[in-house]
Amino acid sequence: MNIVELIKKKRDGKSFTADEISFLIDQFTKGIIPDYQFSALLMSILLKGMNDSETSALTNSMLNSGKIIDLSSLKGKKVDKHSTGGVGDKTSLIIAPIVASTGIYVPMISGRGLGHTGGTLDKLESIPGFRTDLSLSESMKVLKKCGAVLIGQTKEIAPADKMIYALRDVTATVESIPLITASIMSKKLAEGIDGLVLDIKTGNGAFMKNHSDSIELANSLINAAKSFDKKVIAFITDMNQPLGNYVGNWLEVYESIQVLKGIVKNDLYTLSVKLAGAMIFLGKKAKSLQAGEQIAKDKIENGEAFRKFIEIVELQGGNINYINNPDKYPKAKYSRRVLSIKSSFVKEINTYQFGMASLELGAGRRTKENKIDFKAGIIINKKIGDYIKKDELICEIFSDSKTKINTAEQMIINSIKFSRTKPSIPKLIKKVIL
Amino acid sequence: MNIVELIKKKRDGKSFTADEISFLIDQFTKGIIPDYQFSALLMSILLKGMNDSETSALTNSMLNSGKIIDLSSLKGKKVDKHSTGGVGDKTSLIIAPIVASTGIYVPMISGRGLGHTGGTLDKLESIPGFRTDLSLSESMKVLKKCGAVLIGQTKEIAPADKMIYALRDVTATVESIPLITASIMSKKLAEGIDGLVLDIKTGNGAFMKNHSDSIELANSLINAAKSFDKKVIAFITDMNQPLGNYVGNWLEVYESIQVLKGIVKNDLYTLSVKLAGAMIFLGKKAKSLQAGEQIAKDKIENGEAFRKFIEIVELQGGNINYINNPDKYPKAKYSRRVLSIKSSFVKEINTYQFGMASLELGAGRRTKENKIDFKAGIIINKKIGDYIKKDELICEIFSDSKTKINTAEQMIINSIKFSRTKPSIPKLIKKVIL
Repeated sequence: MNIVELIKKKRDGKSFTADEISFLIDQFTKGIIPDYQFSALLMSILLKGMNDSETSALTNSMLNSGKIIDLSSLKGKKVDKHSTGGVGDKTSLIIAPIVASTGIYVPMISGRGLGHTGGTLDKLESIPGFRTDLSLSESMKVLKKCGAVLIGQTKEIAPADKMIYALRDVTATVESIPLITASIMSKKLAEGIDGLVLDIKTGNGAFMKNHSDSIELANSLINAAKSFDKKVIAFITDMNQPLGNYVGNWLEVYESIQVLKGIVKNDLYTLSVKLAGAMIFLGKKAKSLQAGEQIAKDKIENGEAFRKFIEIVELQGGNINYINNPDKYPKAKYSRRVLSIKSSFVKEINTYQFGMASLELGAGRRTKENKIDFKAGIIINKKIGDYIKKDELICEIFSDSKTKINTAEQMIINSIKFSRTKPSIPKLIKKVIL
Repeated sequence: MNIVELIKKKRDGKSFTADEISFLIDQFTKGIIPDYQFSALLMSILLKGMNDSETSALTNSMLNSGKIIDLSSLKGKKVDKHSTGGVGDKTSLIIAPIVASTGIYVPMISGRGLGHTGGTLDKLESIPGFRTDLSLSESMKVLKKCGAVLIGQTKEIAPADKMIYALRDVTATVESIPLITASIMSKKLAEGIDGLVLDIKTGNGAFMKNHSDSIELANSLINAAKSFDKKVIAFITDMNQPLGNYVGNWLEVYESIQVLKGIVKNDLYTLSVKLAGAMIFLGKKAKSLQAGEQIAKDKIENGEAFRKFIEIVELQGGNINYINNPDKYPKAKYSRRVLSIKSSFVKEINTYQFGMASLELGAGRRTKENKIDFKAGIIINKKIGDYIKKDELICEIFSDSKTKINTAEQMIINSIKFSRTKPSIPKLIKKVIL
């Protein structure tokens, strides 16, 4: 097989065989195909697409570039959730303990934040001592003991994905549904799971800006999962405003604790119990999505979910004093209360801009090398459809830098639009695909 | 400006500004934009296209990456010809002396052969001693003295083109009309010419397989040339069979001598005087294409064209004994006469395959590193529409290797189709665009 001929094939809109895809991934990971040829190939894939069998073959080759975790020694179903990411999306922290408390194993490999979106690993690392870099054998121990483990992608897991993603990131070839599908699924399948719940975010703060792209991605992911005989349920959910009210790493852990304790019952709570419910259903601990959701709610009410969270944090080295007494966590040096200058309804939030304001405060990363300030972030008091009176609190901003607070305040104010009449509220859960 | 954003722009089908193109070429030639980003950009240009102003800006940036030869000290017009290449296409060797003998300057920068097509530089180098690597100042001296010079692309001429072409060659991004246009025109404009005649080959032995692609390339080249205020005439000519009867480096010099001496009046002669006539017209030595063509014919008949050829060869270091006595040139070790097994008409020639047979014999290059055997090649005795009797000579094959002759013979036989009825003969000159 000749790499130039293969690039030509895709460039001209033809389909690859599974053998050709296997050759491409193998030769690229071995360094035989250089980056400059692979990036031309990636661009032709982005522009010419891949059919379902190509996507599934690509997933398979990327999966088999590394280790597949063998969880067969654990009796019981293994189920995970994957979200395409957004602003304030902290459901993993809430879902993992809920589902683990039902006896289903949750081996969760998560990512870091980049640009306007946060990442589960960064949020967890805001808990002093919490280790997301457990080795595979350490992870197995935690998983066996408490039913859940939350770690980052190890070197053994889908190394082809790491190499390809690094190249996509700098060659404008991220936004390709088959490439996104293979990247997500190769990592998720490596976890050795039986089922997967997908949360595809859609809206102005999501990767997928419109509904039809989200549906396309959902279907592509479902097809790939099914070709590996994995059970999967996809939710298309709203990202036209931050999820929940807290944005920023420790702030999001704080809000997760409030939800896990049953104190807060906002949109974050609603979505978390839905997703957890679907996982419980896939893990055969409930006969329907509704029954699963009820179990999730019960696990919050009876305290088991929060106790499981503490167990996970402790087993992964985190300091549970801050979980038990979150108000003792160090505060940012500066904070600012942003008040409304008139009485009106919150009409729209430019969620991308809102996420960028959080990044500006120190809660995010512009490049992979940036360090995060865990205390930085935003608490948003009013969301779309809420009425806000003059001088009432819109949001509160936290950072160690006064200059950054000034910049972020302006960005936040610019990101929110108001109206005199009550606007329509975006539906939280837009579609469920079984 | 950010390279990833610029790749995204083209990927999404948007147009670049002249400043953006200048930035891209400048940063790439300086090594600041790495190959893996530039190749993704090239693929997006290939798949999404470029409009005329982008193509012209690209040509300009590539042209200005190097030196533009200043020919203002030479009194008189400077005109060149460019052919997109094919099998047996040796018109440059005939045209340059014809046109130079009329007092028009012909500063000709040519290329080497690759794959099934030959290159003017290789053909010239089959003349012992002939130097195509003259420096710019040496070239100027030759041009001043005899009115023509035939050299290769020097380091000073459009270095961006050299770098970009090397990358296109290995990333399946050669076949892009805007990229081809900028590559050709940046080199031709660097010659400091006033006018250019284009020979766009079309057919099964050409780069452009069909008529509409050829027209598109011709129009793109004409637009680019006009945006630099250069006069240009484009010919769309046939490449569904080899041009002339000789294929292979010295064999093609031999045939050129026959045409320049007025001995041979085949399709090669017909096309050469047409193209030379157009150059004479552009150089204002004739009032019409027809008048120019007549002058070209006269220059052959009165011996001036052949004398000019000898002058050029001598000034560029070539041994003119072989030009005066071409039959004294060393012969290939082996030759084979291929005879017809039945009486019929020559119906079709797979010209690509025919060119590959010539390469197999040693007359061409599979990769840039291959060495050429100047004596190797094919003399074709019958062309499309010719009647051939049983046991009559189809062609004669020359090589230093018997094995290669065996392989090539089979390839040639496979490349020719016969028919009982007289087939239609492809029109040599399909279109002239002024």
